[in-house]
Amino acid sequence: MPTTYTAPLRDLKFVIHEFLDLAPYSELPAFSEASPDIIDAILEEGGKLCEQVLHPINMSGDEEGCSWNNHEVTTPKGFREAYQTYVEGGWSGLTSDPEYGGQGLPHLVGLCMSEMISAANTSFGMYPGLSHGAWAAIHNHGSQEQKDKYLPKLTSGEWTGTMNLTEPHCGTDLGLIRTKAEPQDDGSYRISGTKIWISAGEHDMAENIIHLVLARIPGAPEGTKGISLFIVPKYMVNDDGSPGERNGVRCESIEKKMGIKASATCEMGFDKATGFLVGEENKGLRCMFTMMNAARLGTGIQALGVGSVAYQNAVAFAHERLQMRALNGPQYPDKPADPIMVHPDVRRMLMTCRAFVEGARALALYTGLQLDLEHMHPDQAVREKAGDWVALMTPIIKAYFTDMGSETANLAMQVFGGSGYIRETGVEQFVRDVRITQIYEGTNGVQALDLVGRKLPSKGGETLNAFIEPVKAFIDEHQGDSDMAEFVEPLSEAFDGLQQTIHWLFGKMMEDREEAGAASSDFLRLFALVAMGYVWARQAAIAHARLKDNSGEQGFYESKLATARFFMTRMLPDSAGLMQRIRAGAGPVMGLDAEAF
Amino acid sequence: MPTTYTAPLRDLKFVIHEFLDLAPYSELPAFSEASPDIIDAILEEGGKLCEQVLHPINMSGDEEGCSWNNHEVTTPKGFREAYQTYVEGGWSGLTSDPEYGGQGLPHLVGLCMSEMISAANTSFGMYPGLSHGAWAAIHNHGSQEQKDKYLPKLTSGEWTGTMNLTEPHCGTDLGLIRTKAEPQDDGSYRISGTKIWISAGEHDMAENIIHLVLARIPGAPEGTKGISLFIVPKYMVNDDGSPGERNGVRCESIEKKMGIKASATCEMGFDKATGFLVGEENKGLRCMFTMMNAARLGTGIQALGVGSVAYQNAVAFAHERLQMRALNGPQYPDKPADPIMVHPDVRRMLMTCRAFVEGARALALYTGLQLDLEHMHPDQAVREKAGDWVALMTPIIKAYFTDMGSETANLAMQVFGGSGYIRETGVEQFVRDVRITQIYEGTNGVQALDLVGRKLPSKGGETLNAFIEPVKAFIDEHQGDSDMAEFVEPLSEAFDGLQQTIHWLFGKMMEDREEAGAASSDFLRLFALVAMGYVWARQAAIAHARLKDNSGEQGFYESKLATARFFMTRMLPDSAGLMQRIRAGAGPVMGLDAEAF
Repeated sequence: MPTTYTAPLRDLKFVIHEFLDLAPYSELPAFSEASPDIIDAILEEGGKLCEQVLHPINMSGDEEGCSWNNHEVTTPKGFREAYQTYVEGGWSGLTSDPEYGGQGLPHLVGLCMSEMISAANTSFGMYPGLSHGAWAAIHNHGSQEQKDKYLPKLTSGEWTGTMNLTEPHCGTDLGLIRTKAEPQDDGSYRISGTKIWISAGEHDMAENIIHLVLARIPGAPEGTKGISLFIVPKYMVNDDGSPGERNGVRCESIEKKMGIKASATCEMGFDKATGFLVGEENKGLRCMFTMMNAARLGTGIQALGVGSVAYQNAVAFAHERLQMRALNGPQYPDKPADPIMVHPDVRRMLMTCRAFVEGARALALYTGLQLDLEHMHPDQAVREKAGDWVALMTPIIKAYFTDMGSETANLAMQVFGGSGYIRETGVEQFVRDVRITQIYEGTNGVQALDLVGRKLPSKGGETLNAFIEPVKAFIDEHQGDSDMAEFVEPLSEAFDGLQQTIHWLFGKMMEDREEAGAASSDFLRLFALVAMGYVWARQAAIAHARLKDNSGEQGFYESKLATARFFMTRMLPDSAGLMQRIRAGAGPVMGLDAEAF
Repeated sequence: MPTTYTAPLRDLKFVIHEFLDLAPYSELPAFSEASPDIIDAILEEGGKLCEQVLHPINMSGDEEGCSWNNHEVTTPKGFREAYQTYVEGGWSGLTSDPEYGGQGLPHLVGLCMSEMISAANTSFGMYPGLSHGAWAAIHNHGSQEQKDKYLPKLTSGEWTGTMNLTEPHCGTDLGLIRTKAEPQDDGSYRISGTKIWISAGEHDMAENIIHLVLARIPGAPEGTKGISLFIVPKYMVNDDGSPGERNGVRCESIEKKMGIKASATCEMGFDKATGFLVGEENKGLRCMFTMMNAARLGTGIQALGVGSVAYQNAVAFAHERLQMRALNGPQYPDKPADPIMVHPDVRRMLMTCRAFVEGARALALYTGLQLDLEHMHPDQAVREKAGDWVALMTPIIKAYFTDMGSETANLAMQVFGGSGYIRETGVEQFVRDVRITQIYEGTNGVQALDLVGRKLPSKGGETLNAFIEPVKAFIDEHQGDSDMAEFVEPLSEAFDGLQQTIHWLFGKMMEDREEAGAASSDFLRLFALVAMGYVWARQAAIAHARLKDNSGEQGFYESKLATARFFMTRMLPDSAGLMQRIRAGAGPVMGLDAEAF
């Protein structure tokens, strides 16, 4: 029985139209085009694409994988056609600048699509996902000529893009990059070197591939300050925009991986390939960082998507599979056994998945809105506050969502029991596919260090206030509201604990920087739990209001309350242990000599 | 670079010779043969087999998998030869009854071998592992004629065995079994039906396969009280013990799985196959339970083994991989970057793995000793107390070890970063292989329910005392010992919390049986943490004593203390959150209507 996917339209609409308040932004360019009706229509069409085109080739894509032959890559059966459908539907330019052919819709809407695409077919989503990163790098840092040349076809999806960072000896530590860029008389560069783990580096779905490549110009300073960013097209681009001569870059091999097997992970060889500098010399890493932040948010959303589809399939299985009787006696005496949905431990697993998925969706889309505000709000103060929220939440969403996406996929698989371990059930693919999200775009350990070492102290703590202030305001607002006490009290307690931990940690970090590293992962998890507690409490407040209004869909809002309750009582309490772990400090973490391992 | 495996001989010897006190048992039959020298020699030889024969075919076995052709199964290259080496080395009868050709060594020693075999090659370990279960069923419940006929060749490894329980519609719920056993005039039965997920159900490594099959005799009571156990040999056995006519059982297909791909997971078709009743009619499930308890313990050990090898490889990678500089400045200024071993978050991951592996090993072998005492101690009171410990720890070891084995494999993979996701690194295989241990032999949810619903209330709480009493005695003994305070205090606190939780839970369960289910998984984890805290504190006490004796190997004992410290400060604190979760009760777990999912 293959897996199925149902676009979570009701919940997406709840988050967009009820949880987020978009009304104040209706005059902003992206939002003026995005009336509630239009957003709904887009989500519905996008949902259909994911359900009917992308998900049906998810398992077959995993089974077949990509194949490499003489430097060319063939994607699995159906992927070319699906990509064609995707391009023809205009999905590749959904949120792109209208100046280059995009639809200019809010990022918020783009994130909804990203979640659904990743849920339906994680591997497929890699191809347009990487294009988007390349698009943003050129859009933000390229010359007008470069924008005119590359953006329209990346927007339309006729071409795709890549990000070439990693080399065999360096992943996280990009300062070690060796790929060489030799300046030519015509202003171009000759790029030579080897890049590995390049997603969508080569494939058969588009007529050209635009590589963005980090390389070092001879004589550049050592380390990260001597790295420049280049555009290296697979085919040189003629003046009329058509693909011309083949450039000196090719795919040397593709990796055999644990998962996302339908996504080509390429080793790229650059042999005096022609490249064009993007932005200034030696400022390449800064350009890449813009893309990396978007990619990190996107990676969190990917994991949320996989969590969502895994959860859906586990629910379906739990309704169908009959094993044992409910602890308080048969619920379906006419059947040979009760469906496993009756068992509390199965419920615990499903509720954990659900509370993560729905909470994460709200947190992600709220952050998506801040991303839009950061980019387009006319008020500088609003832009800055929104940017601070995004900066703070990016490592949290990347790391917490991907850890929990893996946990959710594993819990879903556990609900399936033995069937879950069999490939034809499809649920183990979710576990394998989502696992990469904890690693790429900066391992979750790197995210944790980014949060503790960079984001916490940023702007003298002002960045942090983008989170502290609204949470404090929300708690104050609902203080004494008896309906909300069951949500606000645990949130408030965990929030106090977080603030005390931050205070303690600041002190510790001053004494010894290793304390930041030793605390980092547990601290990120603690922060994430409080952030999730905040969005769950806010969702509960809305559900309460709707139930009081008696505005219909009582079941939907009661489910929100029940899930919020589960989060508060069964997930948020982990913060108690995390705070203890953090306060144990670096001593026990570093207590064993390196040689003693 | 392929994975490597080094048998953890020093730590195994520490546990056996220092942590366990075997001296009082030297007069018992199994132990009289097992002097410390002999145990060491066995571990060293066994370690070599695992390092040199089994581990080198682990990755290739995963890559090639088993293949099915016309009802026959071919194991991957090298597996037949490795099995031959295993059999010739006498490993299959290591702990078996000498009356049937075994070496009669303590189970304790068998568990050490199980850990190493599973670490070296989890798939390979399935073949002898299943034989052992079949052996035990016949030994414990078969007639003398059956024992004489089947045990010697199972002991020698010339034949292997299987356990045939699961059917397509029933796994956990064996009461639903439909396989039919029709009595024949000659006292045998005709067995017809389909069994699935039969490990080692068919293969090319042994000349005969002895299937143990659960089936229903016509007219038997419904449910679990109408199930009988049968021996169904692949080849009928001639009077001279040679394999005769082919019996009516065959392998219809093998499963494609997430992992343990070199272990054949078979669908077995029984078409009027000749079977022989083991024990009494309709008492089959009881016979199976004996085997299942051993299998559950064995499954925990499997996961410990995989955790151990994953940890070893992560350590090696962390020493070699150069990325970034230590937070407090370069540690290896002559190298382009520091090894990632310097980073606190990498240490956190490695220490978590280490504290699990070494703690679990001590807990497992202590339980192995109790298993030996339960079976062979002349004093009934000792046997009973030992049996109670084993009964209590079986679900804990099965579920906690397998959850943590998965976590350890995943942490090890995370240390590898992007390399970990690539198949040729081999570490992702550990993640896929170990994942099944959380599922088979009773999912971890079933274990948790066994602990809460069956073991806790068993014998009016007397079973529980087998754990409570020694822990209490240990804490009392070390009260006021300043060296030990850092270990005894957190243990004591968590132990008090566990006891209060048990008290609370007993009350709740009386009111509503669903409370047992809702608490079960968190409760099992809490119990496991306290049990691990106990063995860690005991290991720390030994390390302190050795350091005071100044008896050499200072580094080894200081590492023990450092690891114990990590466990106490960085893992045991999870108990705080678990207690809160448990006390939230079943309400939030069951709060969402089944239809609302």
